[in-house]
Amino acid sequence: MLRVGHRPGRDPRLTTHVALVARAFGARRLYLHPPDPAVVESLRGVRERWGGAFEVEGTPSWGEVLRAARGPVVHLTMYGLPLGRVLPRLRGAGELLVIVGGAKVPGRLYGAATYNVSVGSQPHSEVAALAVLLAELLGLPDAREFPGARQRIVPRARGKRVVRAGARRT
Amino acid sequence: MLRVGHRPGRDPRLTTHVALVARAFGARRLYLHPPDPAVVESLRGVRERWGGAFEVEGTPSWGEVLRAARGPVVHLTMYGLPLGRVLPRLRGAGELLVIVGGAKVPGRLYGAATYNVSVGSQPHSEVAALAVLLAELLGLPDAREFPGARQRIVPRARGKRVVRAGARRT
Repeated sequence: MLRVGHRPGRDPRLTTHVALVARAFGARRLYLHPPDPAVVESLRGVRERWGGAFEVEGTPSWGEVLRAARGPVVHLTMYGLPLGRVLPRLRGAGELLVIVGGAKVPGRLYGAATYNVSVGSQPHSEVAALAVLLAELLGLPDAREFPGARQRIVPRARGKRVVRAGARRT
Repeated sequence: MLRVGHRPGRDPRLTTHVALVARAFGARRLYLHPPDPAVVESLRGVRERWGGAFEVEGTPSWGEVLRAARGPVVHLTMYGLPLGRVLPRLRGAGELLVIVGGAKVPGRLYGAATYNVSVGSQPHSEVAALAVLLAELLGLPDAREFPGARQRIVPRARGKRVVRAGARRT
């Protein structure tokens, strides 16, 4: 994952949502441009409590992240081709780099991406587009496991139940 | 749709994302508690430009919205039952009221909902949970039409193309 056009101080909550969705839906790592220690710290805290190996890394150069990509680059944008049309080419493509734009996306990104992909050609949310893409590619995150968690949720029909990891399910 | 626990002035962008996702993925209306004219205005502007009939309405009482519901009430929460398990009961259930909590969700909501549903038992984003639920229930929003739009996007492999509604597709 690469988040481009983040505005430190202005976008912390939206970028944190992008990062949390990436983690919860099975991405391995998020590169953040420009870097923002607040988001890195926030996700480190989530990893300590909730487990898994997801990492956020600030990067001063999104071009470098693209050059290091080992598979197709998917840029999520409301102007791109419909996800349903591109999905067959993404399935089985191996490692993907998914780019989620923030407020300002450099025009060059459209040319640098392998696929510019839209989730509905309407204005909505990069958080939503990312979640739907990952759910289509990797399945619903219902059963995803996060090793090393200190705590986990026991799903319930009513109310909240959080147990220490390793505790017996009741 | 019902958004509960919105904090006017603090959450405008996240609640706007919730509203935009609801609209783009096929919901009919969003009730917002507490009311926030800024979000109502913002979505009115989107409807004028991009079409459709989606409306945002502030409500001083979320209980009234629940009492007026004509079908199952689905409360999205990380503590609920996995979406995959509940989906079969939601399909074909007719009109749904979907509740998306904000920062503070009253505990009574868990009891008032027909189903408390999680999209992965991990912290992530109400915007993502809503998008995935609606995509599972109503399909990807790729081909959704919004009558009365002034402008629409022509999906492209590269770059951006927006045309006046009614203009010929090129």
